[in-house]
Amino acid sequence: MKKIMIINGPNLNNLGKREPEIYGSDTLCDIIEYTKKETACLGAEISAFQTNCEGEICDLLYQARDEGYFGVVINAGAYSHYSIAIRDAISSVELPCIEVHLSNIHAREEFRHHSVISAVCKGMICGFGKMVYPLGVRVLCEM
Amino acid sequence: MKKIMIINGPNLNNLGKREPEIYGSDTLCDIIEYTKKETACLGAEISAFQTNCEGEICDLLYQARDEGYFGVVINAGAYSHYSIAIRDAISSVELPCIEVHLSNIHAREEFRHHSVISAVCKGMICGFGKMVYPLGVRVLCEM
Amino acid sequence: MKKIMIINGPNLNNLGKREPEIYGSDTLCDIIEYTKKETACLGAEISAFQTNCEGEICDLLYQARDEGYFGVVINAGAYSHYSIAIRDAISSVELPCIEVHLSNIHAREEFRHHSVISAVCKGMICGFGKMVYPLGVRVLCEM
Amino acid sequence: MKKIMIINGPNLNNLGKREPEIYGSDTLCDIIEYTKKETACLGAEISAFQTNCEGEICDLLYQARDEGYFGVVINAGAYSHYSIAIRDAISSVELPCIEVHLSNIHAREEFRHHSVISAVCKGMICGFGKMVYPLGVRVLCEM
Amino acid sequence: MKKIMIINGPNLNNLGKREPEIYGSDTLCDIIEYTKKETACLGAEISAFQTNCEGEICDLLYQARDEGYFGVVINAGAYSHYSIAIRDAISSVELPCIEVHLSNIHAREEFRHHSVISAVCKGMICGFGKMVYPLGVRVLCEM
Amino acid sequence: MKKIMIINGPNLNNLGKREPEIYGSDTLCDIIEYTKKETACLGAEISAFQTNCEGEICDLLYQARDEGYFGVVINAGAYSHYSIAIRDAISSVELPCIEVHLSNIHAREEFRHHSVISAVCKGMICGFGKMVYPLGVRVLCEM
Amino acid sequence: MKKIMIINGPNLNNLGKREPEIYGSDTLCDIIEYTKKETACLGAEISAFQTNCEGEICDLLYQARDEGYFGVVINAGAYSHYSIAIRDAISSVELPCIEVHLSNIHAREEFRHHSVISAVCKGMICGFGKMVYPLGVRVLCEM
Amino acid sequence: MKKIMIINGPNLNNLGKREPEIYGSDTLCDIIEYTKKETACLGAEISAFQTNCEGEICDLLYQARDEGYFGVVINAGAYSHYSIAIRDAISSVELPCIEVHLSNIHAREEFRHHSVISAVCKGMICGFGKMVYPLGVRVLCEM
Amino acid sequence: MKKIMIINGPNLNNLGKREPEIYGSDTLCDIIEYTKKETACLGAEISAFQTNCEGEICDLLYQARDEGYFGVVINAGAYSHYSIAIRDAISSVELPCIEVHLSNIHAREEFRHHSVISAVCKGMICGFGKMVYPLGVRVLCEM
Amino acid sequence: MKKIMIINGPNLNNLGKREPEIYGSDTLCDIIEYTKKETACLGAEISAFQTNCEGEICDLLYQARDEGYFGVVINAGAYSHYSIAIRDAISSVELPCIEVHLSNIHAREEFRHHSVISAVCKGMICGFGKMVYPLGVRVLCEM
Amino acid sequence: MKKIMIINGPNLNNLGKREPEIYGSDTLCDIIEYTKKETACLGAEISAFQTNCEGEICDLLYQARDEGYFGVVINAGAYSHYSIAIRDAISSVELPCIEVHLSNIHAREEFRHHSVISAVCKGMICGFGKMVYPLGVRVLCEM
Amino acid sequence: MKKIMIINGPNLNNLGKREPEIYGSDTLCDIIEYTKKETACLGAEISAFQTNCEGEICDLLYQARDEGYFGVVINAGAYSHYSIAIRDAISSVELPCIEVHLSNIHAREEFRHHSVISAVCKGMICGFGKMVYPLGVRVLCEM
Repeated sequence: MKKIMIINGPNLNNLGKREPEIYGSDTLCDIIEYTKKETACLGAEISAFQTNCEGEICDLLYQARDEGYFGVVINAGAYSHYSIAIRDAISSVELPCIEVHLSNIHAREEFRHHSVISAVCKGMICGFGKMVYPLGVRVLCEM
Repeated sequence: MKKIMIINGPNLNNLGKREPEIYGSDTLCDIIEYTKKETACLGAEISAFQTNCEGEICDLLYQARDEGYFGVVINAGAYSHYSIAIRDAISSVELPCIEVHLSNIHAREEFRHHSVISAVCKGMICGFGKMVYPLGVRVLCEM
Repeated sequence: MKKIMIINGPNLNNLGKREPEIYGSDTLCDIIEYTKKETACLGAEISAFQTNCEGEICDLLYQARDEGYFGVVINAGAYSHYSIAIRDAISSVELPCIEVHLSNIHAREEFRHHSVISAVCKGMICGFGKMVYPLGVRVLCEM
Repeated sequence: MKKIMIINGPNLNNLGKREPEIYGSDTLCDIIEYTKKETACLGAEISAFQTNCEGEICDLLYQARDEGYFGVVINAGAYSHYSIAIRDAISSVELPCIEVHLSNIHAREEFRHHSVISAVCKGMICGFGKMVYPLGVRVLCEM
Repeated sequence: MKKIMIINGPNLNNLGKREPEIYGSDTLCDIIEYTKKETACLGAEISAFQTNCEGEICDLLYQARDEGYFGVVINAGAYSHYSIAIRDAISSVELPCIEVHLSNIHAREEFRHHSVISAVCKGMICGFGKMVYPLGVRVLCEM
Repeated sequence: MKKIMIINGPNLNNLGKREPEIYGSDTLCDIIEYTKKETACLGAEISAFQTNCEGEICDLLYQARDEGYFGVVINAGAYSHYSIAIRDAISSVELPCIEVHLSNIHAREEFRHHSVISAVCKGMICGFGKMVYPLGVRVLCEM
Repeated sequence: MKKIMIINGPNLNNLGKREPEIYGSDTLCDIIEYTKKETACLGAEISAFQTNCEGEICDLLYQARDEGYFGVVINAGAYSHYSIAIRDAISSVELPCIEVHLSNIHAREEFRHHSVISAVCKGMICGFGKMVYPLGVRVLCEM
Repeated sequence: MKKIMIINGPNLNNLGKREPEIYGSDTLCDIIEYTKKETACLGAEISAFQTNCEGEICDLLYQARDEGYFGVVINAGAYSHYSIAIRDAISSVELPCIEVHLSNIHAREEFRHHSVISAVCKGMICGFGKMVYPLGVRVLCEM
Repeated sequence: MKKIMIINGPNLNNLGKREPEIYGSDTLCDIIEYTKKETACLGAEISAFQTNCEGEICDLLYQARDEGYFGVVINAGAYSHYSIAIRDAISSVELPCIEVHLSNIHAREEFRHHSVISAVCKGMICGFGKMVYPLGVRVLCEM
Repeated sequence: MKKIMIINGPNLNNLGKREPEIYGSDTLCDIIEYTKKETACLGAEISAFQTNCEGEICDLLYQARDEGYFGVVINAGAYSHYSIAIRDAISSVELPCIEVHLSNIHAREEFRHHSVISAVCKGMICGFGKMVYPLGVRVLCEM
Repeated sequence: MKKIMIINGPNLNNLGKREPEIYGSDTLCDIIEYTKKETACLGAEISAFQTNCEGEICDLLYQARDEGYFGVVINAGAYSHYSIAIRDAISSVELPCIEVHLSNIHAREEFRHHSVISAVCKGMICGFGKMVYPLGVRVLCEM
Repeated sequence: MKKIMIINGPNLNNLGKREPEIYGSDTLCDIIEYTKKETACLGAEISAFQTNCEGEICDLLYQARDEGYFGVVINAGAYSHYSIAIRDAISSVELPCIEVHLSNIHAREEFRHHSVISAVCKGMICGFGKMVYPLGVRVLCEM
């Protein structure tokens, strides 16, 4: 049974309250529940975390490795666009990481088009709302 | 029952023969078979096309609309990086389009990091090899 | 009696169906009819073509020269922004070409502000909807 | 009967004397006469002004609005390339403005390729010599 | 009693008529009145000017110095974004200048994000509508 | 009675000790006292916080919303120039935020000229030393 | 006996008629004849093709591989400057490709200085007029 | 006897009062006197003008041509860096123009390094304080 | 006896486990021991800290100043490339800081070539593996 | 009998010892011998020089002209990418110069993609190893 | 009596033979003679040198300082555009240096518009052909 | 006993005379003596050279290899910022090279922030004045 960690970055604690036309009306809690239900048949054990702190996202990645997680689904939020620290942590832990974004970052402001962590993740899924989480888990399960 | 069109752009006819360390060893044919099998339970009717010609990809998109397809999974290959013609065709047909790439385009040459069609697609899935096709179909089926 | 060719590029086949707030609700057919009517008194013989294929636009330009056309009104659509091949064909045929666009390309996305074919056309008319076609024909007739 | 103002910016007072291979040998006076004659049948009342001063072009635009002009044909000359003040005046008066240039600005020096007023004008006509003025008037008359 | 000059640049003569969702519905006259009332208790003598002409803004700055003004509140409008001439005049007169803008220039078009006069002004206040004028006066009074 | 939160970012804990020719000789404590005294008559209840941690600034913004604050005066210090996480938190909480800076950031190093949070704040006040804090509070009180 | 394919891209059908001061007065036919004569002693079997269509150039490259050609001399014309599709086809077929240009592309317009296919070709020969074709064949024969 | 016009642009009216470490302590009047004295032996008739207005500098250039001046020494001040209108006036009048600057513009702020009028002047003299004026006159006299 | 603080930034907790071909096989602990041994004769008192959190690195710098440290050897890891907050903390504490990097950052990815803290450190030592730490200490001891 | 000079720039003295996977294992001497043998039948008299000094390459070009050489084959090595001095010497001597490079400079580091001397040479041959020298001589012989 | 050194950089040895429409038909020798004659009355002792070697230009500057020259007139030719070594030598010797160019570098290719030595010279004179040398000497004599 | 070569580039011959606030008051001679004394205990044999000529620095590097030096400490001065020739020589000789700079190049003008030789050196030490030389030697000795 694969252990999978879902890491959520800054401002995702505010999901469901913020700009619902972009992010939908589910809270992060709702989305994690939805993800677990959608992927129940895949036999993964899912743990989810959220933090607004860049350094703690690095810490979570090391924890994932040290506690024997198989892989990580990561929505690094705004940090995706500039955190080389998180990028280095991802390439450092050597776990497969799936980058996800609720919204289609390429259809928003110019500065959201580029993610500095993409190159060290296995791949990216974005734009499909909460569906991106179970899709990310599915990829890890099928590896 | 939803009709879904899979459009494949330039050089994907050569899959399985070319740079297998990047694209895997399956032919496009194999991948379409795999996609149909993986998504059999979702009840979609899948048709797949490939062409090296930019203009014909536009034509296929109009055909998809005119023949009542529900949506499109599109791997526009190299044209993703500069074909505003295809971008315009996508936004013109007003069908949900899912952009897919076999490889993680963000981990390759600089000029592959940006896709001009992303902003008019619903979202993007890339980097998971042939898995991106059934994932793309799944997104359309769950809409 | 001057022969004038009107060349229409990618996605103009979709006029009237697509984003009418930008392009109006006339089909390309309607627009050609309107153009012929508006310029009837000028005594030109107008032939109109549309293709989504970059190479075929080049072919049409050579055909225009070989069949004795006096000049060309060209709406190269999305190709205007990157097709050096069409640019070379225009400068190669040495016929006066009038670049037209239905919408004001300078008031849209950044990447539509620049046209690579402008420098080899005689001039540009854009932003006046279907009116740009008869204006283009008029310029050729008054030369 | 529509009142139409033609505004001419810096150095157009020198037309006919300056670089005739680019701008032709007509004076601004000649061109206005030609424009009136060419558009006589359209039933517009045309007034033309010229000034080398950026601020006075703004003033003319407000005058056009305050005196009930229907629209403006504007050749802002060199100011087209950097005057945000004129751009703001155009969007502020809310009259349809037609941007014209005698020469094909896209075939000249790099710094003439971009006009900061284009995005707030209805459209642009350039490259056809003095013909651009009556064409601009015609567009306003047919609106 | 401190003499304070308020200088208003291009298109501010049109306030109240133009794009009220950006600039509010007060005329420049209203705003000056409001400013005088709001700052009545601060004991400053306020004079206000408006011109669309870049050169005259320079002239006003020299006049401010020559007539013994204590400082200047300046809304240079569009000239803020490119007038090095006004920048030089500001640094030349050696009076404290407070840059103000009614709208939040950083939330508008890219080309409005940068002001070439900011570096030679004492500071900037922007985005609070007509409130920026009395705030600017207040800063000068408390120096 | 309006509750107003003042958020201070990195290195502002060091005020009064650091580069006094740029930031003045008051400590942050002194400045908060000064701000409270200056705005006493406006009837606001002011709470002030300081942290060097990007994530905690996000947390403070959510706290401001959850505890019913009316608005925020924010000096995000160095984070102003790159923290999209804070930018997202500001637009997410939907409270009016006033951006302040003690120094004139436009007169310092190039990399300080641009603030990524400006576009989502109501406006900016900078360059007037400690005066910017009571001015920011005043704006919120007059809304 | 080595089979060598010569692929000619857009507008080369017009050689001899177009801008002879740049491209010389020989037709493409003349040049192919000249190439065969010049390289007769090298014992290669030369086939030459021309097309204005980007996708067909890709197709020709696959045909070259599938029909056992030893290598390719390619003059991709304007497509050299932007066709990543052709670039991918070249690296995909894994035949040695020699890039040739009649004119010295580095001595012409800025946008012709860079070729996106150079990096995947074995090398480049440009600027010597029709001589570049037999030189390209010679390189392949001596490999 | 050659008539020579000296044109001085914005803020040069303030010479002698402003930043003497950059511009020296002479007024513009002093400098013109000095120039006349220094070049007395060259037999030129010198007239000098100053204006802060971009448009009036254009007007002066046309006046110089219309009144039979041999050439112009021009210090366009801040306008040197962005006034394409003045650039066009210079190339339009077809008189030899000598660009001068009191200070070494290449040793000051980045935005002063480039002059848009240099390319249409005969040459440039800068950095030698008031000496640049008689040197400019001398060049015209020796032509 | 000089007190020297060694500050280690994000992901250095993972040394010895991560990409040994770049960073070597020693843990951070090993390296600190090595540094103490190598510099034993220099008579410095060395304290070392590691954190993944940008804000805590700022805190450590203030702690260094407040506790009377003579200087700091800092390896800010990924934060070196974008943390203006740390830059400001360094220039704020006014202690000599020596920037060190295990790897030669100029020989790695483009985005690692520039460090925003270099300009406020005394100097930089990079590329010599763990040797950079004792070299940094040595510089501080010889000041 | 044509005299042809081969000029070799910096570090080509080290050929055969340096990075053989890029440059092959022949010394410069070997290559010159090979070139002479390969072109023996063409009846040219070949002289070859090598220097690491930019100025001496200029000197060699003037010597070539003064001693009646017909043309030059030049491999300017690293100087190709920045030596405007050599560029000026080439255009100054007015001899046909053939630029050659052993490796395909377009397939190496970004800074090697552009050669500042290309525009003043007759053409370029690169990427075919030592073969580029006799090809260069051949071009000169056939002119 | 002031000693003045004239330093001439690369390719100026070729003056009179090269592109006379740009540089005139005088040799460097002629120009030095002309300069001495023109400035005879100023009482300076002029020595002139020419070298194609960047390093020797540095050496000449040190020689100028060591041999008690008052100042230098320098035409660094192509090196002006990139030689930071010469720039450093100029600022290092602390003699007044006058930068001269025969042609108007701002009216030629883009890459000639910028000189890296301008900022450390006293000023620049360019565009007046051989006249720039005596003008440069005159400036030094009048200091 | 290791032989170590110290190579000094342009203008370092002037040390001690030039800008002592940047470079200190020691001559190059003094610094070499200091370096030998400081590293006496390390048992290396040090030879030092200086030249202003780019090509001679290449020559010195080949000499170092040919004469059996263990490694090189190189201060390439201004050439560090643009000499690809020296970069190629360094990677060509395959000796460990330590790049040193007396001043902190990152704290000076923008154009000194980047060194083109860094990527092929083992590492860089800069900013500690003359101390950088013995530190560089020490690194080589401990390899």
